[in-house]
Amino acid sequence: MKEQEFIQIIKSTLNSKYIGDDCAYLKDLNILVSQDSLVEDVHFKKDLITPYQLGYKTVMVNISDICASGAKPLYLTISLSLPSDTNSNFIRNFYNGAKDAALGVEIVGGDITGSDKIYISATAIGSSKGRKISSRSHAKPGYKIIVSGEHGSSAYGLELLLKGNPEFTKNNIENKFIKSHLMPEAQIEFSRNISENIQSDYAMMDTSDGLADALFQIAKSSNVNLDIDTTKIPHDSRVDMQTVLYGGEDYQLVAAVPESVLQKISGYTIIGDVKEGPFSVNFDGKTFTQIDDKLFNHFKE
Amino acid sequence: MKEQEFIQIIKSTLNSKYIGDDCAYLKDLNILVSQDSLVEDVHFKKDLITPYQLGYKTVMVNISDICASGAKPLYLTISLSLPSDTNSNFIRNFYNGAKDAALGVEIVGGDITGSDKIYISATAIGSSKGRKISSRSHAKPGYKIIVSGEHGSSAYGLELLLKGNPEFTKNNIENKFIKSHLMPEAQIEFSRNISENIQSDYAMMDTSDGLADALFQIAKSSNVNLDIDTTKIPHDSRVDMQTVLYGGEDYQLVAAVPESVLQKISGYTIIGDVKEGPFSVNFDGKTFTQIDDKLFNHFKE
Repeated sequence: MKEQEFIQIIKSTLNSKYIGDDCAYLKDLNILVSQDSLVEDVHFKKDLITPYQLGYKTVMVNISDICASGAKPLYLTISLSLPSDTNSNFIRNFYNGAKDAALGVEIVGGDITGSDKIYISATAIGSSKGRKISSRSHAKPGYKIIVSGEHGSSAYGLELLLKGNPEFTKNNIENKFIKSHLMPEAQIEFSRNISENIQSDYAMMDTSDGLADALFQIAKSSNVNLDIDTTKIPHDSRVDMQTVLYGGEDYQLVAAVPESVLQKISGYTIIGDVKEGPFSVNFDGKTFTQIDDKLFNHFKE
Repeated sequence: MKEQEFIQIIKSTLNSKYIGDDCAYLKDLNILVSQDSLVEDVHFKKDLITPYQLGYKTVMVNISDICASGAKPLYLTISLSLPSDTNSNFIRNFYNGAKDAALGVEIVGGDITGSDKIYISATAIGSSKGRKISSRSHAKPGYKIIVSGEHGSSAYGLELLLKGNPEFTKNNIENKFIKSHLMPEAQIEFSRNISENIQSDYAMMDTSDGLADALFQIAKSSNVNLDIDTTKIPHDSRVDMQTVLYGGEDYQLVAAVPESVLQKISGYTIIGDVKEGPFSVNFDGKTFTQIDDKLFNHFKE
């Protein structure tokens, strides 16, 4: 878990209240800001994703963090570092994908530099105006745990792509799993629906590192027990529960909200309840205080 | 000039008024945002800069773009992509350098991922409150051209470092040229001084790509002639005029401002006058309409 160790060092070096969250809430400016990177051969393989899809995914991944906070995504900057043999078609297709993903969100800057491999880093800016901003530490006993969409589809799609079967390629975007992986959709409406209709504190995260990871993070930060009924988690029947819980990159949202808000919103599925702490997560009655080590971790050797 | 070609493609694909400037001015949020990357073996060599200096420079490079707009730098996010053999000392030293550079500016987030080489991308956010924001297209005939600091020192420092002479290493930070290159200083006060005291439109840029490049960009965007007296450009006598004009990474500021504001500010040197267009730059009476091709360009083979 080198990544977590590094984040702890950064936190103690900077002595900042912001480090460690997916978004920084800059209250004096009424904005939220989030930065995420996509690195060739770490987050994607060039032969498994088209430049258009890469642009699309870059934008969605970054908008998703803003959505998880409940803020309204407004602006994006994108920095591209590209090998010197990159041609203008790559740029054109990448930005067409980015543009199509960024409906209602404007791409306003960034830079281009050289590099050995493709390296993309984007920053998303959202507005807190008229929105109640979430925190992963705001889950409270009595709250319901709700999710958007289907879970595990992206990881299952990646499995298909990795098989090398000519049936399952980046060009077969009609396959819903492959589409989930290569062109995920940030949950803008789900987020807006909650953050415009809620008065109480609440917790919300995206499932970029997997649903289980998000649940553990919320439970830990809020010092509560999350009691999950896995049979309630929406997923395609072809995807096993291991992948549903631990597969990352679905970019769905999971939130812990007071029951009273549920009548004002739609498009959610209740998958469990928040109970008194100390911190733990129950899957179908079985209690866990440590996450299974099957998570996506870039520094895992 | 592949980099410029790519920027043109991005501009036309996105049809955005923002792309192409160093900072995006998001007027609805009263902020300016800028993103810049530092890539190993493109922008720096690991053996020629310490982790502390790299953190310091990363912050200064990004704050400098905000300073060039006249805004007040407030926040930074930093994304690091690091080889798996990176140790915790690197992180600690990098962030100590970043923290020391970011006086008055808070580092509020970012992410860490794996990679083959070190990639750093940072985003700076500044506030336009109480500041007049510059634009490179706002130089007007009759304006004076002023600069901060000394020019060419950073490029000269890089020359020294590249010599491989044991006298000139990253550890010899008492050498002012090496310090200029490895630990440049963003011109926060020079910027504040102008943007808080000026009512008229004005042009300002930093000299990250060299003083001559900044002058050409301002002249072109404003469609004016910039008449420069190179003998007035502050520089160390050991640095030749070629390096003074074309050496990059000094992160000094160059501005075109009305003469009336000069009595309200300090710490500047007048190096020339803005005259009627069409676009051109005079160096000591010799007219240029194209910049010498000695500029730093990442895609130049």
